[in-house]
Amino acid sequence: MSDQNPVFIPGPTNIPDRLMRAMQVQTRDHRAPDFVKTFAPVLRDLKAIFGTTDGTVITFPASGTGGWEAAVCNTLSAGDTVLVARYGMFSHRWIELCERHGLDVQVIDCAWGAGAPVDDFRAALAADSGHEIKAVLVTHNETATGVTSDIAGVRAAMDAADHPAMLFVDCVSSLASIPFHMDNWGVDIAVSGSQKGFMLATGMAILGVSPKALAAMDQATLPRSFFDFRDMTAANASGGFPYTPPLQLIYGLRESLDMLFEEGLDNVYARHARLAEGVRRAVQAWGLQLVAQSPGLYSDTVSAVYVPQGFDSNVLTDHAFNAYGVSFGIGLGQMNCRVFRIGHLGSLTDVMLLSGLATLEMAMADLNYPVTLGSGVAAAQDYYRMTAGAAVRSAA
Amino acid sequence: MSDQNPVFIPGPTNIPDRLMRAMQVQTRDHRAPDFVKTFAPVLRDLKAIFGTTDGTVITFPASGTGGWEAAVCNTLSAGDTVLVARYGMFSHRWIELCERHGLDVQVIDCAWGAGAPVDDFRAALAADSGHEIKAVLVTHNETATGVTSDIAGVRAAMDAADHPAMLFVDCVSSLASIPFHMDNWGVDIAVSGSQKGFMLATGMAILGVSPKALAAMDQATLPRSFFDFRDMTAANASGGFPYTPPLQLIYGLRESLDMLFEEGLDNVYARHARLAEGVRRAVQAWGLQLVAQSPGLYSDTVSAVYVPQGFDSNVLTDHAFNAYGVSFGIGLGQMNCRVFRIGHLGSLTDVMLLSGLATLEMAMADLNYPVTLGSGVAAAQDYYRMTAGAAVRSAA
Amino acid sequence: MSDQNPVFIPGPTNIPDRLMRAMQVQTRDHRAPDFVKTFAPVLRDLKAIFGTTDGTVITFPASGTGGWEAAVCNTLSAGDTVLVARYGMFSHRWIELCERHGLDVQVIDCAWGAGAPVDDFRAALAADSGHEIKAVLVTHNETATGVTSDIAGVRAAMDAADHPAMLFVDCVSSLASIPFHMDNWGVDIAVSGSQKGFMLATGMAILGVSPKALAAMDQATLPRSFFDFRDMTAANASGGFPYTPPLQLIYGLRESLDMLFEEGLDNVYARHARLAEGVRRAVQAWGLQLVAQSPGLYSDTVSAVYVPQGFDSNVLTDHAFNAYGVSFGIGLGQMNCRVFRIGHLGSLTDVMLLSGLATLEMAMADLNYPVTLGSGVAAAQDYYRMTAGAAVRSAA
Amino acid sequence: MSDQNPVFIPGPTNIPDRLMRAMQVQTRDHRAPDFVKTFAPVLRDLKAIFGTTDGTVITFPASGTGGWEAAVCNTLSAGDTVLVARYGMFSHRWIELCERHGLDVQVIDCAWGAGAPVDDFRAALAADSGHEIKAVLVTHNETATGVTSDIAGVRAAMDAADHPAMLFVDCVSSLASIPFHMDNWGVDIAVSGSQKGFMLATGMAILGVSPKALAAMDQATLPRSFFDFRDMTAANASGGFPYTPPLQLIYGLRESLDMLFEEGLDNVYARHARLAEGVRRAVQAWGLQLVAQSPGLYSDTVSAVYVPQGFDSNVLTDHAFNAYGVSFGIGLGQMNCRVFRIGHLGSLTDVMLLSGLATLEMAMADLNYPVTLGSGVAAAQDYYRMTAGAAVRSAA
Repeated sequence: MSDQNPVFIPGPTNIPDRLMRAMQVQTRDHRAPDFVKTFAPVLRDLKAIFGTTDGTVITFPASGTGGWEAAVCNTLSAGDTVLVARYGMFSHRWIELCERHGLDVQVIDCAWGAGAPVDDFRAALAADSGHEIKAVLVTHNETATGVTSDIAGVRAAMDAADHPAMLFVDCVSSLASIPFHMDNWGVDIAVSGSQKGFMLATGMAILGVSPKALAAMDQATLPRSFFDFRDMTAANASGGFPYTPPLQLIYGLRESLDMLFEEGLDNVYARHARLAEGVRRAVQAWGLQLVAQSPGLYSDTVSAVYVPQGFDSNVLTDHAFNAYGVSFGIGLGQMNCRVFRIGHLGSLTDVMLLSGLATLEMAMADLNYPVTLGSGVAAAQDYYRMTAGAAVRSAA
Repeated sequence: MSDQNPVFIPGPTNIPDRLMRAMQVQTRDHRAPDFVKTFAPVLRDLKAIFGTTDGTVITFPASGTGGWEAAVCNTLSAGDTVLVARYGMFSHRWIELCERHGLDVQVIDCAWGAGAPVDDFRAALAADSGHEIKAVLVTHNETATGVTSDIAGVRAAMDAADHPAMLFVDCVSSLASIPFHMDNWGVDIAVSGSQKGFMLATGMAILGVSPKALAAMDQATLPRSFFDFRDMTAANASGGFPYTPPLQLIYGLRESLDMLFEEGLDNVYARHARLAEGVRRAVQAWGLQLVAQSPGLYSDTVSAVYVPQGFDSNVLTDHAFNAYGVSFGIGLGQMNCRVFRIGHLGSLTDVMLLSGLATLEMAMADLNYPVTLGSGVAAAQDYYRMTAGAAVRSAA
Repeated sequence: MSDQNPVFIPGPTNIPDRLMRAMQVQTRDHRAPDFVKTFAPVLRDLKAIFGTTDGTVITFPASGTGGWEAAVCNTLSAGDTVLVARYGMFSHRWIELCERHGLDVQVIDCAWGAGAPVDDFRAALAADSGHEIKAVLVTHNETATGVTSDIAGVRAAMDAADHPAMLFVDCVSSLASIPFHMDNWGVDIAVSGSQKGFMLATGMAILGVSPKALAAMDQATLPRSFFDFRDMTAANASGGFPYTPPLQLIYGLRESLDMLFEEGLDNVYARHARLAEGVRRAVQAWGLQLVAQSPGLYSDTVSAVYVPQGFDSNVLTDHAFNAYGVSFGIGLGQMNCRVFRIGHLGSLTDVMLLSGLATLEMAMADLNYPVTLGSGVAAAQDYYRMTAGAAVRSAA
Repeated sequence: MSDQNPVFIPGPTNIPDRLMRAMQVQTRDHRAPDFVKTFAPVLRDLKAIFGTTDGTVITFPASGTGGWEAAVCNTLSAGDTVLVARYGMFSHRWIELCERHGLDVQVIDCAWGAGAPVDDFRAALAADSGHEIKAVLVTHNETATGVTSDIAGVRAAMDAADHPAMLFVDCVSSLASIPFHMDNWGVDIAVSGSQKGFMLATGMAILGVSPKALAAMDQATLPRSFFDFRDMTAANASGGFPYTPPLQLIYGLRESLDMLFEEGLDNVYARHARLAEGVRRAVQAWGLQLVAQSPGLYSDTVSAVYVPQGFDSNVLTDHAFNAYGVSFGIGLGQMNCRVFRIGHLGSLTDVMLLSGLATLEMAMADLNYPVTLGSGVAAAQDYYRMTAGAAVRSAA
């Protein structure tokens, strides 16, 4: 029966019933007018989520990794230099992807738990007087460490260095959950996916692309076909798709957008912030440490937590799954065995999160962690009570 | 987003995804062979749930209330005497139904919180030397008070009085959750529904009928058509239905039975007992009282809890719903304003229940109940940990 | 794979995907405000379908048979006289139901294939100077014979006789498919169900009740509990239900109403008329006879067709099911073996119906009926083409 | 209401209800043991569909186009020579893809309507004494022309030339519908997708890869990340996925495989052959010509049909959609305006196909094609009757 428990992994997220239903779409002809009438508004409405009016939204039937590849292939050529900081597993993987595509990757290695090194970026860009650096790649929300970076700061650093490089941002685990302002921040490509803030099944890479990045596609010589912006934008222009589109996800996206707009993006962000803070209070009550180095870096979509010395976080997450049927994120890369992660994004409520915290307490107690049952739950309850809105205040 | 929270009402219960899918059945011809091949085994397999080999299972597209009416109409005639004890809202309603159908209802009034009065039954039956009493009606699990009665005891009382009356049992909120042994207990009609232990949508009354009760249908003169056992058993004999059957619920029932058999009925009962005990420990930790008068009466499917003096339970349940989006059962009848109820039957896990307990704590704290956040949760966690099975023991 | 074929039985009808999704509702608390907000507008909007502003809509978790019983039990007393004409299986069954409930049923027997005998009704009512007849019961659309009766004519007959009897109409297989005007026709109770024109799963009886019929509930002494209008109207008044409501069907009904209103009731009726006429042209092309005695009686929701002398219609419907996986209605009662029925109501298109006609042709050819393959299909195609609307005309 | 009509495009195919349900999977942790237990058997069972025991199955969350790219990127290097024949839109696109990836594409241009030019292949390979040709690329079923090519013949030609090139086959619209024997035919990479013979939603590229092709991935220098066989096979080895997997499609694939195995692959092939032949008889009855040049080339999954001189096939398909709500395939590339296509693969029945043929007749009549209503339907009915199996024969 445990398949009824929510998951607390940092995506894919729990799918609301409403979206589950919206994805139940019988086959329709994607060359018929109905498809155009559905798809074109989806692309248009996605722009509001990215915070762009100038940009173009491009989707592929792929995962977020495919989105990274699309960003790189369509704008760069073999040998091009890109500047990237590595401070977690996902920034690491993007670096690796660039290397495989023959780019010259200038890596700034940071501690895992740090955010995007704005000062280092500024220095590196200032030093690049020949403008060899074609793009700066930043992971907005590093899912491996629970760190949200300051994209506005990166943009400021680029501007300070007066550098023309493009700015590519991985917002897979932040978009539609944490504020994102593509135009304001001067982001050239923002890469996301269907399975996080959009609360849908996995299978669609969703990119916001600036006019500048779009223009780059004509010069870029990295080979691509499936992920080719040229075919996609040409087909999208008349509401079509260059090959068979993932109909079910497109209809799901339509409904997801409706849900987000009905709630209001600011409310969506506030909800994530509130849920996250409750989790952090529980972590503090347990006496455990977050991987994120400072409050300004705390992610509102995932918290990565160090287990105490002498404990193995994989044993904890395995046990939570085996004994209680609840999934938490494991520690990735160098964080493996040392960190567990609590996803708190997408379709989750305070009530659901309390069950996750209660489960962690039971699992830690089973494994002799120095944790008091109910302590983290109470800290979170206290915070959730205080912030539950008008209903609570009027009740008191 | 709160529509993703589970409900903690004592039925209808949370519907598992597997059953949600199983009920998605496109229209098929109920006069075609496929229907027979599906329906007949469902009726047969339901017998194992009732604990009967001699009995016949009869279903109607109706609620449990319809099941009560079917039991009465098919076996009794206007003016017949029935013996019933009233100790909660559902026993009360069954009495009312009998009165509307012109029966002479001999009522034993008990405190709400008591169980079936076995000694009083014995006395009343012994006094009925003329065998005017045609049926004894007992509510196995009184959903309004969280009390499970001793049906074996009632049977023993009937046997002790050597009385030929039929024994009708309302097991709507106990079947497939709490042990039920129709044949062993000499139950003549057991009335249940699709929306509790079977974890399905509301819409099907499910009755177990003994040969003796079935024979009574030929003498019974209460008018009935929709609920007529004669039409139904005649149609069922060849795998059919006397009118349009509720196809979706029948397919759902097929899958529900498969789930129950896969888990094993004893495991289903043990799961409910474990979940219920955790809830009771939380109630005790809060310093609150159950309505059920003694541990032997505690229901494993629903706990009815008195609020402290000076508090209004309706305010509490309303607040839990409005502030946290979680539904609990309200106090019914004379328990209104004084009692809230926690349903813990059907598709629920320890993890889900902890979120319900945590919600109650927040709601009580909001309303200034003398309750410590996390206290009930911790008591339940402690119990669930100790009883979580092999995985926990090997982890420790 | 044949489970993908549509059914051509006269209900339950093919369920559109949109309604299939709408019925996928996770359990919610039916005592919570959300339920009220959903259910009350459903009851209100159903009035437009019945064509009533004065009446009250009452629903039960039951089939149409339950709706008949509710109509009778709530308005009549044992020994009351009702006037009914029998001209098919469903009028026959309603008579039987009345008899079982101890009514004095004055039956006018008509040929199966005839409609409601307006003149006989007038005569019988005129003869009833003592106004013993409390209700006239009429089957609007006799599903067994494919006959639609003239309810306005029956009302005129009642008025001509100046008789105060109530008028009860079975519109199970006509409502939301064939024009129905409860107020204009002076109908006191109209009985329908969820599984025909509403295109939903079986499980809800839906009644329109006039103020006069509602007032009768206080005098009526037939016993009833589950179907008691008093409990239901009292609970409905505050948006509630007297027992557990069939949530999934209520949400389904909400969406069904939206679909019907979006299309427009007049368009819904016109669609059914067009589909039916195509079927009738096919029947004519095959040289077969309809059971309905004259064009004015032809039903737009179901056609009952005589097989030629020497053939057994059950062999035909069985064969269509076994060889081609398609369900048609069998002949009921005295029509058994002599008649097959083509349902053409609810969610069907001209295109789907053509596949049904093509199947019948194959099945008839297999069984050596004197029928030319493609002949009925061509007749229907010709009609559908001519009536396909603007798109066709502009193409030509 | 026309959204209830089946589609007759050559994929995505109509999704059976059973698979629609199977894809309704709530989020689960893809790093948990449950995923491994589901995914590994899916990969293993897919081998039977490809007809391989030696090969490895590799899947990507992408469309078939992505599968082509994966095949090329993982086995070849810029400048490598490949030999391809162009005889339709999909072979044309694969050529284009190779060119974009910097391959030296040796194209054999054939008439559209021809199949793979076995003799030309033999000659070209024999001429390539230096073994510059690294791979021969063949489209098994050219969806644009309704032509199925002789893969065994291509293999024989390669063997006759004693050439070591790899053989890549696009079987997107043939796998699980038309016999395919990867090992017997010596296919090195077979590329398919979820949305055709598997009857699922679009979103998964499915490849069968021979040991030889797999070994090539270590030498291949074309850049790739998302589609990298190395990451995928490494992750698959332990039942995992290198990034977020498309859970819903994987569960759907599990059920699709179960359906295919239950029916039996030979029966699946026979069913497609029977449905296709009925369509071809209708086309013949209409006096129209197939694009496929000879019976040996006729595809059992799609028929491409020339419209008569002076007619525009786009007008026909538009009209069928607008007037009757039915989708057929349009003519692609040089076939545009001249050809319409009838898809007859996946979840379709004879009965459903007859409705498609009937629709085409109506649409053609509306547009003044010289076609008799019912003529094609009758030809198909006649064939379907004769081949409907035991039920029909015993009825006669």
